[in-house]
Amino acid sequence: MKRLKTSDPDFAKAFARIVADRRDADDDVSRDVARILAKVKADGDDALADFTTRFDKWTPASEADWRIAPEACEAAFKALDPTLRQALETAAERITAYHREQLPARRDYRDDQGVRLGAIWRPVDAAGLYVPGGRAAYPSSLLMNAIPAKVAGVERLVIVTPTPGGQVNDLVLAAAHLAGVDEIWRVGGAQAIAALAYGTERIRPVDVVTGPGNAWVAEAKRQLYGTVGIDMVAGPSEILVIADKDNRARHIAADLLSQAEHDPDAQSILITDDNDFADRVADRVGIELAMLKTRKVAEASWKDHGVIIEVESLDEAPALANALAAEHVELAVANPEPLLESIRHAGSVFIGRHAPEAIGDYVAGPNHVLPTGRRARFASGLSVLDFMKRTSFIELDEAALAAIGPAAVALAEAEGLPAHARSIAVRLEEGETK
Amino acid sequence: MKRLKTSDPDFAKAFARIVADRRDADDDVSRDVARILAKVKADGDDALADFTTRFDKWTPASEADWRIAPEACEAAFKALDPTLRQALETAAERITAYHREQLPARRDYRDDQGVRLGAIWRPVDAAGLYVPGGRAAYPSSLLMNAIPAKVAGVERLVIVTPTPGGQVNDLVLAAAHLAGVDEIWRVGGAQAIAALAYGTERIRPVDVVTGPGNAWVAEAKRQLYGTVGIDMVAGPSEILVIADKDNRARHIAADLLSQAEHDPDAQSILITDDNDFADRVADRVGIELAMLKTRKVAEASWKDHGVIIEVESLDEAPALANALAAEHVELAVANPEPLLESIRHAGSVFIGRHAPEAIGDYVAGPNHVLPTGRRARFASGLSVLDFMKRTSFIELDEAALAAIGPAAVALAEAEGLPAHARSIAVRLEEGETK
Repeated sequence: MKRLKTSDPDFAKAFARIVADRRDADDDVSRDVARILAKVKADGDDALADFTTRFDKWTPASEADWRIAPEACEAAFKALDPTLRQALETAAERITAYHREQLPARRDYRDDQGVRLGAIWRPVDAAGLYVPGGRAAYPSSLLMNAIPAKVAGVERLVIVTPTPGGQVNDLVLAAAHLAGVDEIWRVGGAQAIAALAYGTERIRPVDVVTGPGNAWVAEAKRQLYGTVGIDMVAGPSEILVIADKDNRARHIAADLLSQAEHDPDAQSILITDDNDFADRVADRVGIELAMLKTRKVAEASWKDHGVIIEVESLDEAPALANALAAEHVELAVANPEPLLESIRHAGSVFIGRHAPEAIGDYVAGPNHVLPTGRRARFASGLSVLDFMKRTSFIELDEAALAAIGPAAVALAEAEGLPAHARSIAVRLEEGETK
Repeated sequence: MKRLKTSDPDFAKAFARIVADRRDADDDVSRDVARILAKVKADGDDALADFTTRFDKWTPASEADWRIAPEACEAAFKALDPTLRQALETAAERITAYHREQLPARRDYRDDQGVRLGAIWRPVDAAGLYVPGGRAAYPSSLLMNAIPAKVAGVERLVIVTPTPGGQVNDLVLAAAHLAGVDEIWRVGGAQAIAALAYGTERIRPVDVVTGPGNAWVAEAKRQLYGTVGIDMVAGPSEILVIADKDNRARHIAADLLSQAEHDPDAQSILITDDNDFADRVADRVGIELAMLKTRKVAEASWKDHGVIIEVESLDEAPALANALAAEHVELAVANPEPLLESIRHAGSVFIGRHAPEAIGDYVAGPNHVLPTGRRARFASGLSVLDFMKRTSFIELDEAALAAIGPAAVALAEAEGLPAHARSIAVRLEEGETK
């Protein structure tokens, strides 16, 4: 963990290093991935079988092995502990309600020149969702990806997920049932993304692919961007907590560790204006770590990437926060509203002392798929818009064309595009024969 | 040009070939581009100077050579022929008006559990716009990229454009003045995209890069996706005209050629239910081509990629149109409204007999940067949203946390993330000391 003070003479330099430290996996996997994509494109299901045997140490023996039946998902859901089932239902309801508010409206109007203009938002036909196997198979993540697609109106929602050694994760199946997923295929890695984008004999192609994954999955999505729509490239998780001294140190320590436990590359940063509070949080992180089952990961993250920045005044916080453009920002201060307005770059903001970031991971409602690695400068969290597209439309009658057509003719001619000009001019001329 | 009839026994096969024929440039430029990007990242302005000399056959001699002064843009604007100036102004006003309607609203509400939720849309800090040199330097394209950024509220709008042999395009400068562009740098190619994304000593980095370009520019954007936001990968232009026999053949022929003249790889497709009308359009295309200054390009496009599909009934058109998911769709039919509703995949739809596609290229108002190559299945035209991003927010008080916190604790524990659970649980416990 680094301790910095904005009053230190070398602060700017040290802070710039933290901003530049993107912690993205930059394994040189792109050639491997390109080869896997080409193989799936050429050989389809045979390639999937080969890669599944090789990477997941498991060979589908029958047609039924490839796909998880809806009945299995329903059974997994019914077998859930009632508290957990209700928690999942609460999460699904709240995520659905929040995302419904995102649904964009159709526009359709006639302007003062008599031109009818507008735009129609429609869902894509099919969406594919990657669900990692093993440690990172989170039912909350499935809900956060599947529900926006369902709310958008996507008719076919397909999951691909590796089942290493043939093992299936029951919590994921239960969440898939709850979210109304249509198909679940037991394939993972770059090969699964290729199957979604190109289609195989078994798996029909989709239009948009989202969901978290390892470096191979992320690179496959990047390479297939344009063949399908994808969600933003994602890096390790981050939290920036801005806290005054009137917080309980244990609350803030727990918040910092809730990001740290995700990944040794995750980053937790505290900005505070109180030296004593900073000390107490640092101490408390040590105490909490000792009790934590996920200590190994959390300790590595805190040690290598944790930062406490002491500011003279919290007025310095927005500039620092905007430079960091963090995925999650907590405003644990007496008067958070001005900070909410002045922090321009953040994936999601948690306002006040009673909004730990983890509440947003599960049940608050907004999406927990958020831009990382300073991408909040230009990117947004996952939303229903990622599963929709917009068609603009233009309607003119003769009078409207007469009003605005000549300007278009002038521009087309100036650009050296005579057929453009002519397609308008022939309509402006009158009394012509067919 | 291919003539097909849906009643032909081999129609499905022939049509599938047309759908699969994406005509994307697939030059293997990715290694070249990767090398150029790395060089600009490492050497900054020196690399830009080298590449400019090599690719643009021109070497900036002084500091002033690198950047086009605002005064030069203003002078170019004032020197425009008045008709053309007014046409540009009409275009800018109408594009501005349409894009203002796209501005998304902030959401901020409290739900029935007392949780405050919402989302704030904000512009990115800086946007970079690529403007090609030479033949494809279109002022209309500059307006279509710059205006959405200005309407979004982007404070710094930067153009990069190659000036081969030192030549500057006055129409482009005039449009830049009109659009309120802040900086224009005389660099092009992949190196210009790298400069925008990474920044150099002269050129500060931007957050989003849009604009058309050749295969190197497109590949550079693709490779830098994630470092900056980009607009959709673009391929050659396309038009699908759905026309009944009551159109004038010369109108429809002109519309088909207005796409064909863009690029030998452009594609124009006509769907009609009348064999005689199809013949007349085909004949008329020949006549128009003979008169056309852009004949060479348009003829190549029509010959290699043009298609006329004769349907038994226009009821067959939506299924064909949805499979093609074309950039532009014209509905030159007596009753276009049902087609507007049933064609789900299209970049932009032109309704009725008086709405030639070219009107949308210049002055209608909607953006002319639209998804090509069947990407209308999942992508949308350029909009203010491409220059904005959304920050979600969550606020809870003690009662709200008590209401929804336990569900989050249950889920975090089930997912094996104890620090997540604890960050909520410590706040739910009462009477604890700091």
